Amino acid sequence: MTCSCHHLEAMLKLTRAPILHQLRATIRTTPRPAAGYTLSTRSPYSTMKALVYKSTAKVELQERSKPEIQVPTDAIVKVTKTTICGTDLHICKGDVATCEPGRILGHEGVGTIEAVGSSVTRFQKGDHVLISCISSCSSCSYCRRGMYSHCETGGWILGNTIDGTQAEFVRIPNANSSLYAVPSGVDEEALVMLSDIFPTGLECGVLSGKVQPGSTVAIVGSGPIGLAVLITAQLYSPSKIIVVDTDPNRLKVASSFGAHATVDSAAVDPIQTILDLTEGKGCDVVIEAVGIPATFELCQRILAPGGSLANVGVHGTKADLFLEDLWSKNITITTRLVDTATTPMLLNLVQSKKLEPRQLITHRFKFSEIEKAYETFGAAAKHGALKVLIEM
Amino acid sequence: MTCSCHHLEAMLKLTRAPILHQLRATIRTTPRPAAGYTLSTRSPYSTMKALVYKSTAKVELQERSKPEIQVPTDAIVKVTKTTICGTDLHICKGDVATCEPGRILGHEGVGTIEAVGSSVTRFQKGDHVLISCISSCSSCSYCRRGMYSHCETGGWILGNTIDGTQAEFVRIPNANSSLYAVPSGVDEEALVMLSDIFPTGLECGVLSGKVQPGSTVAIVGSGPIGLAVLITAQLYSPSKIIVVDTDPNRLKVASSFGAHATVDSAAVDPIQTILDLTEGKGCDVVIEAVGIPATFELCQRILAPGGSLANVGVHGTKADLFLEDLWSKNITITTRLVDTATTPMLLNLVQSKKLEPRQLITHRFKFSEIEKAYETFGAAAKHGALKVLIEM
Amino acid sequence: MTCSCHHLEAMLKLTRAPILHQLRATIRTTPRPAAGYTLSTRSPYSTMKALVYKSTAKVELQERSKPEIQVPTDAIVKVTKTTICGTDLHICKGDVATCEPGRILGHEGVGTIEAVGSSVTRFQKGDHVLISCISSCSSCSYCRRGMYSHCETGGWILGNTIDGTQAEFVRIPNANSSLYAVPSGVDEEALVMLSDIFPTGLECGVLSGKVQPGSTVAIVGSGPIGLAVLITAQLYSPSKIIVVDTDPNRLKVASSFGAHATVDSAAVDPIQTILDLTEGKGCDVVIEAVGIPATFELCQRILAPGGSLANVGVHGTKADLFLEDLWSKNITITTRLVDTATTPMLLNLVQSKKLEPRQLITHRFKFSEIEKAYETFGAAAKHGALKVLIEM
Amino acid sequence: MTCSCHHLEAMLKLTRAPILHQLRATIRTTPRPAAGYTLSTRSPYSTMKALVYKSTAKVELQERSKPEIQVPTDAIVKVTKTTICGTDLHICKGDVATCEPGRILGHEGVGTIEAVGSSVTRFQKGDHVLISCISSCSSCSYCRRGMYSHCETGGWILGNTIDGTQAEFVRIPNANSSLYAVPSGVDEEALVMLSDIFPTGLECGVLSGKVQPGSTVAIVGSGPIGLAVLITAQLYSPSKIIVVDTDPNRLKVASSFGAHATVDSAAVDPIQTILDLTEGKGCDVVIEAVGIPATFELCQRILAPGGSLANVGVHGTKADLFLEDLWSKNITITTRLVDTATTPMLLNLVQSKKLEPRQLITHRFKFSEIEKAYETFGAAAKHGALKVLIEM
Repeated sequence: MTCSCHHLEAMLKLTRAPILHQLRATIRTTPRPAAGYTLSTRSPYSTMKALVYKSTAKVELQERSKPEIQVPTDAIVKVTKTTICGTDLHICKGDVATCEPGRILGHEGVGTIEAVGSSVTRFQKGDHVLISCISSCSSCSYCRRGMYSHCETGGWILGNTIDGTQAEFVRIPNANSSLYAVPSGVDEEALVMLSDIFPTGLECGVLSGKVQPGSTVAIVGSGPIGLAVLITAQLYSPSKIIVVDTDPNRLKVASSFGAHATVDSAAVDPIQTILDLTEGKGCDVVIEAVGIPATFELCQRILAPGGSLANVGVHGTKADLFLEDLWSKNITITTRLVDTATTPMLLNLVQSKKLEPRQLITHRFKFSEIEKAYETFGAAAKHGALKVLIEM
Repeated sequence: MTCSCHHLEAMLKLTRAPILHQLRATIRTTPRPAAGYTLSTRSPYSTMKALVYKSTAKVELQERSKPEIQVPTDAIVKVTKTTICGTDLHICKGDVATCEPGRILGHEGVGTIEAVGSSVTRFQKGDHVLISCISSCSSCSYCRRGMYSHCETGGWILGNTIDGTQAEFVRIPNANSSLYAVPSGVDEEALVMLSDIFPTGLECGVLSGKVQPGSTVAIVGSGPIGLAVLITAQLYSPSKIIVVDTDPNRLKVASSFGAHATVDSAAVDPIQTILDLTEGKGCDVVIEAVGIPATFELCQRILAPGGSLANVGVHGTKADLFLEDLWSKNITITTRLVDTATTPMLLNLVQSKKLEPRQLITHRFKFSEIEKAYETFGAAAKHGALKVLIEM
Repeated sequence: MTCSCHHLEAMLKLTRAPILHQLRATIRTTPRPAAGYTLSTRSPYSTMKALVYKSTAKVELQERSKPEIQVPTDAIVKVTKTTICGTDLHICKGDVATCEPGRILGHEGVGTIEAVGSSVTRFQKGDHVLISCISSCSSCSYCRRGMYSHCETGGWILGNTIDGTQAEFVRIPNANSSLYAVPSGVDEEALVMLSDIFPTGLECGVLSGKVQPGSTVAIVGSGPIGLAVLITAQLYSPSKIIVVDTDPNRLKVASSFGAHATVDSAAVDPIQTILDLTEGKGCDVVIEAVGIPATFELCQRILAPGGSLANVGVHGTKADLFLEDLWSKNITITTRLVDTATTPMLLNLVQSKKLEPRQLITHRFKFSEIEKAYETFGAAAKHGALKVLIEM
Repeated sequence: MTCSCHHLEAMLKLTRAPILHQLRATIRTTPRPAAGYTLSTRSPYSTMKALVYKSTAKVELQERSKPEIQVPTDAIVKVTKTTICGTDLHICKGDVATCEPGRILGHEGVGTIEAVGSSVTRFQKGDHVLISCISSCSSCSYCRRGMYSHCETGGWILGNTIDGTQAEFVRIPNANSSLYAVPSGVDEEALVMLSDIFPTGLECGVLSGKVQPGSTVAIVGSGPIGLAVLITAQLYSPSKIIVVDTDPNRLKVASSFGAHATVDSAAVDPIQTILDLTEGKGCDVVIEAVGIPATFELCQRILAPGGSLANVGVHGTKADLFLEDLWSKNITITTRLVDTATTPMLLNLVQSKKLEPRQLITHRFKFSEIEKAYETFGAAAKHGALKVLIEM
């Protein structure tokens, strides 16, 4: 769900048609009725504002019906903060076939329980909750194995196949296992980063890559998700983290977030540089956080014997696997969606100040300015944007 | 080290120049001096017979100097039984750059300790030992991690960069950690299978693939190594093992060795057939035991979400990795050389009759007939050969 | 939940007051109305027969109200087969404080779905299901970690804090995650063994003890649960399983179920005997399946350095831990309740004939004869009883 | 090897005869010849100074023969820095039966290679090395499993069954696998802490206890080894570490080393206090770092369901195991000696400044003052001593 498609352009140094400029032009709210009129003609609670995917390169802030409990396992959450994910931009571009026009976007956020169905036992009206980007029934065969992302009736559905969180209210199916109680004393802005990007960095990157104390780690891609990997990798005290990107600004951010070395792959040969930084061995853990063949192939070249290559990037095409070199190197390659199985761990870490997810937030917008937020995030490199926070 | 290059041809249905026929023609022993003459002019122990790699497609049974202790960690083993590996055929074809003409081949075998250096504390003259295909110092950083195959001064060196086991005597460096005491009551023929092919099947296939009770397993390739995977996989009680090959005879063998289903990929669509056999899910564990792009790519197509693809095959070229499909499937791909870290476990299992490695032996030859053994093993499909046992 | 309290007596060689004889005397059904009368005055579905815990040493087959859906996550299962657990005998003796008089006993069984609440999405009326002895919400913090036995609102509640399965119908809370669909072609009798005793043996014994191919394993206690450990341990191909008990008949059963050696601890010194059987090392895995200090202490004495002691027995008192000996032996001791997390694996294994749980069933009774079944199971040693099957 | 026997007194609040005062009185060097005389009558290299265990409560700085290479796998190390371990004090008290009078003490230190046997391939004269407290052959069955502490011919032998490191020179058997090359730029004082106390804290405490990001951890005992656990636990980013002791000064040190809470078990009820600190659940990981029944029993009482109790303390007597409570709590108890398998990881961490082991050093002495060092360390509480550094 988290990706770095715009960043992809930087890596490839392509000059593409500015899709996101088109996007900007089409982001506009629907005409809003005058306040007085509204109050007189409709229930104050019957409609809400929501950011809707209209058609390729077109999103719109619309007035939509407020969601209602449909089955006893549902909850309705009043959203207080949300954000925009790289995947939302992908949807805008028409890259995500499962998401049809008319869909309210967004799969991240925090809020307050507005209503619960009769089978929701873990939450009640008024509870402060974190929304997971993954909805899970918790009882199908995949959920029983902790693969919530592959839930037979859930997975990534919010803002994809059902309406999402970039709205004043959102319906959360299987609320018992798709929401988390917010611990006391935890900053709400930090929590928005726990809906998707932090568990993605931790699970798909750090845990799949088996980062351990003393490991040497390379992270290829210094966009938001690469940086989330960088931050969460430090939970395991690797001895060296090398971040690779083509954008010097992002590499600067990486340094400030704890990278021990950065490699500008547009300026130097990244393979040789990384071998030099690791006594010729390559890295114990290599994490792909871009999603294109070129970077995936680079990852294979900088992997030490016995190492792990954890793929985080969203790929649209195949890549070369250099088996003639790798077959004898005792390596492991992993791919996965985020399962948000680590959300309880991350909540503990935020509560105890071991993690400061807020450091990824570069911009803040009101919900009424969400079009500007999309514009800013869509031109992230220009604006130095990492994650943009949307406050309702 | 173990591979299935000849089998590769069957999979691809290629019509290649019959390299192994050329090989047969050139396998011949060096002229041997008359027995009486020999006895009168040299020490009875100064020379020995050995199978030597002469040049591409040419091996020869020669008279060579008997090896001697060179450093205190060496042992000299009098070989009693050995075998031929697919890798030996690769060397014959000139595929293995590290192995130069003049080398005595062979990295498998059992024997008796003839002499030990002063630092060899675990063995003494007369001990019955199993020779590991992997020589390891046991103290370098790789050995400390159990990656004996990547030992800084060892690894697969026998019959490759130093003289090997297809000889009456062989020098084993770092004997303490490169030989294993043969437990009482264990059949010697079974043990020859423990030098390489059984630990390879178990480590690179079964353990890397994480076969568990109840797993569904596909093994692509039913040559000797695929069959070794099949046999050792059953140690973990998977609920279903499907074996794929293009040779109906080998599939028959697979059935007799415990495969629950076999798929002739020359006769049916293997992908659809395997999906049908697994309720559309694919297999939890897929093991590649051929070593070509076509079979590696097939493996990706029959892997269930959350599954493991363990590569056992020796690859000479890159393959396509279908990341556009796999990135979200929570899968793991592994490659590795055999470390023979499981040899003690395998010895226990053979001693307690939980494993019967002899079932892989189809042909037996005297050492003086080793050229015939190469010929038979080189045309394995024609002769229905799996492993050929060479008795000294 | 599974225990071996009656077996405990044999281990201790105590002469106790025959509680179970008292039990037999008090097992009697409530007076049943004449059939014609019944039919005219109540709905044919409003009542059912059920085995009820009356008071210490007293159970009774009564006419009780048929259970109904209480919350949307409930299901009602028409029980077709059930069994009696050692824990049920414990309840009879008054050992289980949480279980109050009036409770319908039983936490094992198979049946057919009679009705489902509106939140039950995985099952519908008519489905053939296995009832887990553990009810789990699947979404609390323990369930998310796979510790279903510690579910905040579930765990072992059936036949303990809510009415159980020794009845014509039973209400199953959180049906989505507390029932399992029965695969086609699986024998129903085998499945009854999957409600509790087989997952208990596998999880608490084999998995916690980390049985591996080639392991040496000792199982102390050859009652039903020890035998379930013995059967499931063989899924991992240990090289040696030694079973210890004081009852020669049970040891004979152990031998017939695959034990490589048996030790009658009433006849020989079990410690010395087991050391002799393991070259003086002790066992890699030792599994306690009795539940008294004497056997737990024996387990410590036969544990090899680096070994695992997995406790399966239900203990009512503390035991000595010989830290002066164990502190330096690199050992692991585990305790746990069954989580039935392995039920899907076990279903696969039964379906594929890798497991034959029926071999534990020694006696079969009709539900109307359940009092006789309690009597037989309560005097298990006398009757050579392992598990008794109750057919509705 | 590392223990806290003196600390034990504080925990128990016993008033013991001051054994270590007696010890002080008997620590004295042998009469030393005048310098000029010495030089004229012996080879400058034939003797050395060494701290020798004379008899109970008696150690002596003596002139001893310099050690020599005995077998080809030996190395002679010129010691530059060493330290005193709690175990050395135990030996002084006569608690360690394997260590006989006349033994040079010490199993920790750094130095320079003076000479190597012909089988020592990993080091040469002049190399800067860390001495492991564990000597290992690296090839016996225990070493192959990473259990170097149980090496059939090694383990903890230095300063125990063979002469140790509290001397100008020491002979290291199996040098290839018992020494570590010192990486460039690493502080030598820090390294002395890597011979024993840091790997002990990490392996026996943190790794056996499975500390993970977000864990709640209790460490019972705030002596040097408890503090080493505290420091290394932070490599895994637990959310809360609670340290328990009876000495307020040591608890202050614990706070300064990163404990999130400290509990003075002489002042408050430690069980209730810890339950209060963990929302009534107890701790995920509890580490025993004292070595007496009272503290081991406390550990059981503060363990959360699903938790791990890792024993680090050296125990001289049995303890109660509360199985009536623990049998159903899904817990794991581990014991082990340090294997120093993590030394390479620790060297990486020290080199990259992720660990600062020097923080444990409170006192520094010249080797000629080692008697004063023993005195100080023997009365650690009085002097606020943690580790004392001895410089040659």
